[in-house]
Amino acid sequence: MNRRKFFKNGSLLTLGTTLLHPFSGMANTIQYDTEGKNKKAKNIIMIVSDGMSTGTLNMTDLHLSRKTGKCSNWLQLYKDNRVNRALMDMASASSIVTDSAAASSSWGGGVRINNGSLNVSENGEEHLPIWQKFKKVGKKAGCVTTVPITHATPAGFCINSKSRNAQEEIAEKYLEQKFDVMMGGGNNYFSPEKRKDKKDMYKAFASNGYEVVKTRNDMFSASIDKPILGVFEDKGLPYSIDRENNKELLQKVPSLAEMTKKAIEAMKDHPMGFVLQVEAGKVDWAAHGNDITGLIYDQVAHDEAIQVAMDFANQDGQTLIIMATDHGNANPGIIYGKEANDNFDSIQGYSHSNEWILNGIGKETSISQIKERVHYANNFALTDEECKQLLNYYTNLQTEKGLYNPKHLPFKILAEIQKQYNSVGWISMHHSADYVELALYGSGSHLLKPFIKNTDLHYLMLEAAEIENKF
Amino acid sequence: MNRRKFFKNGSLLTLGTTLLHPFSGMANTIQYDTEGKNKKAKNIIMIVSDGMSTGTLNMTDLHLSRKTGKCSNWLQLYKDNRVNRALMDMASASSIVTDSAAASSSWGGGVRINNGSLNVSENGEEHLPIWQKFKKVGKKAGCVTTVPITHATPAGFCINSKSRNAQEEIAEKYLEQKFDVMMGGGNNYFSPEKRKDKKDMYKAFASNGYEVVKTRNDMFSASIDKPILGVFEDKGLPYSIDRENNKELLQKVPSLAEMTKKAIEAMKDHPMGFVLQVEAGKVDWAAHGNDITGLIYDQVAHDEAIQVAMDFANQDGQTLIIMATDHGNANPGIIYGKEANDNFDSIQGYSHSNEWILNGIGKETSISQIKERVHYANNFALTDEECKQLLNYYTNLQTEKGLYNPKHLPFKILAEIQKQYNSVGWISMHHSADYVELALYGSGSHLLKPFIKNTDLHYLMLEAAEIENKF
Repeated sequence: MNRRKFFKNGSLLTLGTTLLHPFSGMANTIQYDTEGKNKKAKNIIMIVSDGMSTGTLNMTDLHLSRKTGKCSNWLQLYKDNRVNRALMDMASASSIVTDSAAASSSWGGGVRINNGSLNVSENGEEHLPIWQKFKKVGKKAGCVTTVPITHATPAGFCINSKSRNAQEEIAEKYLEQKFDVMMGGGNNYFSPEKRKDKKDMYKAFASNGYEVVKTRNDMFSASIDKPILGVFEDKGLPYSIDRENNKELLQKVPSLAEMTKKAIEAMKDHPMGFVLQVEAGKVDWAAHGNDITGLIYDQVAHDEAIQVAMDFANQDGQTLIIMATDHGNANPGIIYGKEANDNFDSIQGYSHSNEWILNGIGKETSISQIKERVHYANNFALTDEECKQLLNYYTNLQTEKGLYNPKHLPFKILAEIQKQYNSVGWISMHHSADYVELALYGSGSHLLKPFIKNTDLHYLMLEAAEIENKF
Repeated sequence: MNRRKFFKNGSLLTLGTTLLHPFSGMANTIQYDTEGKNKKAKNIIMIVSDGMSTGTLNMTDLHLSRKTGKCSNWLQLYKDNRVNRALMDMASASSIVTDSAAASSSWGGGVRINNGSLNVSENGEEHLPIWQKFKKVGKKAGCVTTVPITHATPAGFCINSKSRNAQEEIAEKYLEQKFDVMMGGGNNYFSPEKRKDKKDMYKAFASNGYEVVKTRNDMFSASIDKPILGVFEDKGLPYSIDRENNKELLQKVPSLAEMTKKAIEAMKDHPMGFVLQVEAGKVDWAAHGNDITGLIYDQVAHDEAIQVAMDFANQDGQTLIIMATDHGNANPGIIYGKEANDNFDSIQGYSHSNEWILNGIGKETSISQIKERVHYANNFALTDEECKQLLNYYTNLQTEKGLYNPKHLPFKILAEIQKQYNSVGWISMHHSADYVELALYGSGSHLLKPFIKNTDLHYLMLEAAEIENKF
């Protein structure tokens, strides 16, 4: 029997034995490392679902299990006993409820800072971002995301900035540091037509040796002998469900799993190894919009990226995979009721995000058009009264506000209406203070304790890679 | 150096070694058992916080950490790396969102049944409850709770009943099985004045050799040479915060920790060992009422019971402690905002539950009296408009319904008002489908995988105690 087959049912085989017991009377067990757990992590892939409440992880797993008979990759790792798990306290220096900038900085810089900043403390002190540390010891480093690549979560691993909003500047800082793969949305911060200063950042990256790609096919064919900048949309990439149901978007925009695969291919043969951050950033945006369809299908896309990373790590045997989120958001959950199963399962038939639904309604839209649109996207029929409630928001009788709702679309009222049909509830449209789920697989995963502070993860990554923190 | 001292910093000391490596090239480690992890579990204490969403565990830990500088006992065990943790899927046979009867039955009988029943499947098949199994092999068995002792969670470990509502019958079934310690609320199901059939169950228990106690002092002085029945209230016990601020209740009703201590004392010297279920049942009732004060302080009371159990287990060295919940409820969380820290901390000054507030208001209550009452309990001043909103529910202009709200008190509207002052939100007033937190400490805790089904826990308890499942 070959060894791989022998161990196929578990990553850590624990054998009771009495051969070795220097302390008499104490039971002891031996653990054999079959997944490189105790090896030095040559590579690190951190896969972040931004704003993933526990309920988001759970609901997506339930959704997949009931739809396909197969659970999520994330929870399959739990079932197979292949990971170390923890709860992680994500508080920032300024609040028990963090924003994504302070959260990413806690991992990136190893220090809690105020919400809104990137690796800069209130007193102005700058903390060297972790992907710069890894670059300094010779590794390749990159980020891929479904939101602008200049957004808080990738930026927190890469640069220092007093404000997360300085996204044009952040694009320039990326170039200064020469990160090896940077892909996502954010054309607004690279294009000379969109930037306030009219600089052509694409040109700047290209003249510094980068492959610059703007479509999915260009990404596939990009040379891996050069660093890669990929920017596929002005702001965030479309929600996975909207992309899947739109041929044009499918051709233009890569999935998170596809970006992850390309990034790994581009860096995996580097002799000193690589570090990669993968962010499902729009899970957070969907939670801000109480947009169940955006949320679940983007979490599925995140889960597909986990599979890509796992496939590599299993083959490689010296990679640490970190599955994490930076904070809860809106704490969604499935609510008790006689119809809970059928209601929740109805989401399997949803074809478009709430953003898609609401972006297609305007002052001039008729009641019957609204009905048709919601039925097309969600398979249920709104009442006239519900349509009027929605329309009120377009005729300016009522408005919804929020950083993630620049068009003041009626996300909240739509989620309230949907709740009757899908049994999913939300506590708010904002981040929550919940301790969050964290799971580590592979090399260095044994370093994780069951409860950590966000900043501990910074030092865990360095320790797993056996890098002295002297910078 | 003595062995205890040598190992004081960790429960499991992992030593790298190259002495034993039958499979060449594989790293291996040896684990030495210092907390009886690999011993047979002579005793099992399962401590259930009923309806504890992840947010309830987290918020209570934050509350304690910020108030006292010391975190909860539950999470301290995580920080000290002394437990095995899992997510647990609590679905029932009839729904992805369980009720407490099906949930307790899944652990108690090892089979998923429909919501509402206790260890009886839809086809009438009965599943032998786990505390009866442990009685059959000679162990003592008991339950203590803050809700009626005949309620779903204790009943699910003890008896079979087609309906959880048959609480009078359940009291009789307890006597048939001769459980060793049964304490909580539920006078309505024991007293001849309250029971429909006018039976005096106290007399029946006493004539079968039980010590019957009805006050905290009687409980303290009860002989441990006899089995004990303790019933301290008609229905549930008062919320911990209301008990703490009421001298009469403090004298009459024991805390969950006090009941736990008494139950352990009464059973710990039994040569064959014991099993005990401890339930913080009113955490669930508080969540049904979106009652943050009831919720957090009852979760604190639950955490104090954990300490009592841990003190015993640490001394005993052959006890399995199971920290669990049976389902989420209302998924509370702290919402992002500039005032989130101060708002959340204001709960430290709350002195009474929302149940207490609302029970003290009636049709005749004036606006200024409502203001005074809420200020007394919560330290903030309602507006006239908010007072009128509340009063509307008493004058029957509006009503709230629900199994846990027989008086139709305006719990929801009060929580909505409070949210502005304490930043805590809720998704509903019902159970949720979330996978739940589970942690095991001590003997047999190594048997836990990172993700399990509720029914797996039934077999884990038997395996930990090395009891063959042949009944």
